[in-house]
Amino acid sequence: MYAELCVTELHGALGDPALNSMNFLNEVANHFPEAISLAAGRPCEEFFDLDAIHRYLRTFCDHLADDLGYTDEQVRRTVLQYGRTKGIIHELVAANLQLDEGIAVDPESIVITVGCQEAMFLVLRALRADERDVLLAVSPTYVGLTGAARLADLPVRPIRTGPDGIDLDDLLATIRRERAAGRRPRACYVMPDFANPSGLSMDLPTRHRLLEIARNERILLLEDNPYGLFHGDSERIPTLKAMDEWRCVVYLGSFAKTALPGARVGYVVADQRVLDTDGSAGLFADQLSKIKSMLTVNTSPLAQAVVGGKLLEHNSSLAKANVREREVYARNMRRLVTGLIARFPIPANGGSPKVTWTVPAGGFFVVVTVPFVVDDALLERSARDYGVLWTPMHHFYDDPGEVRALRLSCSVVTPERIDAGLDRLAELIHDQLAQ
Amino acid sequence: MYAELCVTELHGALGDPALNSMNFLNEVANHFPEAISLAAGRPCEEFFDLDAIHRYLRTFCDHLADDLGYTDEQVRRTVLQYGRTKGIIHELVAANLQLDEGIAVDPESIVITVGCQEAMFLVLRALRADERDVLLAVSPTYVGLTGAARLADLPVRPIRTGPDGIDLDDLLATIRRERAAGRRPRACYVMPDFANPSGLSMDLPTRHRLLEIARNERILLLEDNPYGLFHGDSERIPTLKAMDEWRCVVYLGSFAKTALPGARVGYVVADQRVLDTDGSAGLFADQLSKIKSMLTVNTSPLAQAVVGGKLLEHNSSLAKANVREREVYARNMRRLVTGLIARFPIPANGGSPKVTWTVPAGGFFVVVTVPFVVDDALLERSARDYGVLWTPMHHFYDDPGEVRALRLSCSVVTPERIDAGLDRLAELIHDQLAQ
Repeated sequence: MYAELCVTELHGALGDPALNSMNFLNEVANHFPEAISLAAGRPCEEFFDLDAIHRYLRTFCDHLADDLGYTDEQVRRTVLQYGRTKGIIHELVAANLQLDEGIAVDPESIVITVGCQEAMFLVLRALRADERDVLLAVSPTYVGLTGAARLADLPVRPIRTGPDGIDLDDLLATIRRERAAGRRPRACYVMPDFANPSGLSMDLPTRHRLLEIARNERILLLEDNPYGLFHGDSERIPTLKAMDEWRCVVYLGSFAKTALPGARVGYVVADQRVLDTDGSAGLFADQLSKIKSMLTVNTSPLAQAVVGGKLLEHNSSLAKANVREREVYARNMRRLVTGLIARFPIPANGGSPKVTWTVPAGGFFVVVTVPFVVDDALLERSARDYGVLWTPMHHFYDDPGEVRALRLSCSVVTPERIDAGLDRLAELIHDQLAQ
Repeated sequence: MYAELCVTELHGALGDPALNSMNFLNEVANHFPEAISLAAGRPCEEFFDLDAIHRYLRTFCDHLADDLGYTDEQVRRTVLQYGRTKGIIHELVAANLQLDEGIAVDPESIVITVGCQEAMFLVLRALRADERDVLLAVSPTYVGLTGAARLADLPVRPIRTGPDGIDLDDLLATIRRERAAGRRPRACYVMPDFANPSGLSMDLPTRHRLLEIARNERILLLEDNPYGLFHGDSERIPTLKAMDEWRCVVYLGSFAKTALPGARVGYVVADQRVLDTDGSAGLFADQLSKIKSMLTVNTSPLAQAVVGGKLLEHNSSLAKANVREREVYARNMRRLVTGLIARFPIPANGGSPKVTWTVPAGGFFVVVTVPFVVDDALLERSARDYGVLWTPMHHFYDDPGEVRALRLSCSVVTPERIDAGLDRLAELIHDQLAQ
């Protein structure tokens, strides 16, 4: 006879769709290993190199000794012992942000985290003071954001996407509605570049207007930017943080796509001033650091050292380090979009097309809209009977109802598999349309 | 003009002593770098070896290829890509638990975490369903436990230590009192071996009684065991988990002291059954894994590989891997205790001694009790005027009042520094007594 727990006695997030989406999607993928996956959003693996890992670690240790004058004992202590809660590669990250993004920040305002996911949780945990607090997020939303908000007991209010990546009128209306109801919108989560899952980006005027709204309404913007460097052949638009004169923007950074997923290293730039009750002031980063000290203590300095070595080898530029990766993703995105055009041509009779899709200039994701409901049962049928995996878009909505769209990813698949996957997807869609 | 936040608008934990203790103690240490530290509880550094890190990583990769038959591509993917949420070294950890602790567990019931700290948070987050839930913890308590509980909005009720490491009558009385007040005690946090900060251990009959109480009262025991392997010359007493017939025990594991602090790898064994609302049942570990997926996604597989390599090189025995470390800690503990005896002899007149201390058989910590209040101001004076650091015991109490004790640590200091540190401490204490 064993001790038993009932799920109803556990934290409510555990029954929440946001925390079960990932599990469900992974399970489907595991059940049908032969299916072609246009679902996985993992970075490409073709440049993975174990020898490089050893080299990066040595490069970082040499940097500590040669550039910073550390003794051997100090080098070993820095990489192998417990360390600074805010991390040990903050100077390198600040240099990288200056170089690749034109973002100038004090390294002290950076907290190195266990991937971007921990950064999200730290910020949401800090911003949730009581039950009045709510988070705004462009919908459809990255499921990891929704999940982190659930763990922080912070409700998420959806903001419509619109053609510009965010519907600013809806943002303003939602802020007012929430305030009228006695609630406090604390921040709005946005992914301005090649968003997951929509693939959409914000144009420059939208970014300026969004910053003004944040300033006027006194809300923070949580800018998540995992895909900005993968901009294909398009010109980069400045990040919100690069234009953040009023320090409204908390910038969430990931090295999973640009350096190494297996290091699980990300960061948050939080240069907002926080006033204490005794009148003293500090950085928001230092508040986040206090939370981190009770969540993960510090990010593995060994893992940080590997990422730091990669930064050092490319003179702090991840744009330079990712020239090959950018080309792979751009090539795959072209293949995916031209493949969709070939399989779902515009009707010759001039009628409106039944199947449409976004055409992102970069990133990993395309959203395909179809004239039928796309649910988990259809995904399972697709995997079993057609041999292709994708992601039902309803997983990215908080209160989905019936969603008629699916997400395709082209990040970790070969061009040949993209073609084959699209053949299978087209067969499924045509069969559905024929019903 | 910048955006500003006020700390009162942030999560309440940020104003809490538990989250500020670590900061304060680190700041004192940083302000007085020349002071001898009998405060730091970090593991010893004399066997740190960067070459070993490279070797461990290669050993783990060879294991994947040679023992498990992975292709080169699969090896690279396992170590460098996003990975299994519950981790990749669970089989090795299960083998280690069997070998070193006599704990038999299904590897599927293990979640590899970002240090033991994340394991604590996962469990506390899961167990906090609503405002009725409370956690019990032997007091004085490890400050990381209290901090994690604050982040999970879970109140902590202190249980008296008593001479056996836990006062079981107080435990029962507290459970009843909380239930009578409409609250739900969910679990009791214990460190049965060489506890931080008390240094105390539970004897075997106490462990049996504690397990019975947990079973009868239907509460979980959260067993934290970072120091068990460092048992000096004493016989090891079985862990609660090794005797856990009823699966009342959630076992929290750390590799920071036994393998490598810089990897930030720990784990939790959660083999409790969880019943879902649809009647299905799963492991508590799988619920914790869902929370982890939204907190840190997965523990760096690179960091896990390094720890895995160390386990492999010692045939899964960390007892074997830590023969030298055990001797260092035992030697330092003897030096610390004999040093205290030499400096604070039992009064020749037969009167009761003014200064007393615990005499742990192992671990890192000794608690010294003095006849005056030990506050943070005294620590600062000790650091500045006497050149010695230690930890005021009030940091380990939730509602401390005036505490007349301090914690000494001997884990990361040489015997000569222990002697010199004790000389300085004795001077401080004698000056205080003379006042």
